[in-house]
Amino acid sequence: MQHVKALVFDVFGTVVDWRTSIAREAGAFFAKRYRAVDAEAFADAWRKRYQPAMEEVRSGRRPFTRLDVLHRENLELVLADFGIDPKREGEAALDALNRAWHRLDPWPDTVAGLARLKTKFFIAPLSNGNIALLANMGKHAGLPWDAILGAEVARAYKPQPEAYLRTAEVLAMRPEEVALIAAHNNDLAAAREAGLSTGFVARPVEHGAAQTTDLRAEQAWDVVADSFTDLATKLGCA
Amino acid sequence: MQHVKALVFDVFGTVVDWRTSIAREAGAFFAKRYRAVDAEAFADAWRKRYQPAMEEVRSGRRPFTRLDVLHRENLELVLADFGIDPKREGEAALDALNRAWHRLDPWPDTVAGLARLKTKFFIAPLSNGNIALLANMGKHAGLPWDAILGAEVARAYKPQPEAYLRTAEVLAMRPEEVALIAAHNNDLAAAREAGLSTGFVARPVEHGAAQTTDLRAEQAWDVVADSFTDLATKLGCA
Repeated sequence: MQHVKALVFDVFGTVVDWRTSIAREAGAFFAKRYRAVDAEAFADAWRKRYQPAMEEVRSGRRPFTRLDVLHRENLELVLADFGIDPKREGEAALDALNRAWHRLDPWPDTVAGLARLKTKFFIAPLSNGNIALLANMGKHAGLPWDAILGAEVARAYKPQPEAYLRTAEVLAMRPEEVALIAAHNNDLAAAREAGLSTGFVARPVEHGAAQTTDLRAEQAWDVVADSFTDLATKLGCA
Repeated sequence: MQHVKALVFDVFGTVVDWRTSIAREAGAFFAKRYRAVDAEAFADAWRKRYQPAMEEVRSGRRPFTRLDVLHRENLELVLADFGIDPKREGEAALDALNRAWHRLDPWPDTVAGLARLKTKFFIAPLSNGNIALLANMGKHAGLPWDAILGAEVARAYKPQPEAYLRTAEVLAMRPEEVALIAAHNNDLAAAREAGLSTGFVARPVEHGAAQTTDLRAEQAWDVVADSFTDLATKLGCA
């Protein structure tokens, strides 16, 4: 990691705990309107439609479409799956719930870790989230990013190589000078393939207590840590 | 300004004092190598090539090219104008001097004003600078941006309408919900034409003590202030 100048972060799951945050907001939405639902199951179902929606863009079947739009379309589908007619909710209520993705809470070590990492590295998200989503989230959660690089900048979705390479390009750095920090081995594998440096931070309850994936580093990533504060220590940040 | 949610800022001249900063770095560059030069004249000459270089892009004669590249090309031209062969300097020295545009100092009221404005508004640059330039400058100068929206995001140079409209679009706001804050009447006129709200902050020595342009608001902009701290007060930010 000696030559690394910038740390770029996967966001959903690595920086923020999307599942707890979405479940909380979805639970409140349902409680007001209908009945108790399994809010975590709803969060999981909404998230499950994330990759297939982006795959339409990655494959070229659909032009680049920002994540806010994909989330909103998926919300209507998942509400229908839960037996609710989205048309009865009204645009304003659906938009407000969709913006829950702008209000995700950080993991407990995130803000303290980023503040230390920022003293030595340029720090920015490298997320499939769009700029407005990431910027609002940064303001909500107090994430001290040096820049917000939303997916509109690369106009490509990870794990497409362009997502990693164009990020290095806009930072005016060589790929190896940029390290992706992520809790997902497949994201890191794609980043390494594109020439970036890599760091794994375990997030063993991203998907709840029964999580079976990404519990540990599956390759010899350049750095492996248990938390952002542990990462800061391992990278020599005071 | 009641409906305004985001303030986006012209940067060169409005947020930072490019002339003094560039003159200081250019003066040091020349002093080490050659002789005393008129460093302010050099800064002015370098800056004078800024608009014509962007006009090549705006006109479509040249594909979108980021400002770091335009600045670097212009540096070689202006060195030649000052009687210096850029080839003798070497790439590393030229790159280092070109990066002076990443290290511009804020006006004395900038950081304090932005910190207050940020409590009530989403704040971001709307500059012709590229992302790396703006992000490095933000880190150097301590500018508390909520997002960095470099020219790569809009892929258009002000005063093209796309530069303003695509910025509102990536913020997921209506144009009138976004106010451009600038020290330049022509920038504000183009922003208003595109439907944005507008605020003028006078920077009467941007071009030195003999400045004759942009000394005052030339239209009834939505807000007019003498400094960023005055702007914060006028917009009701504690």
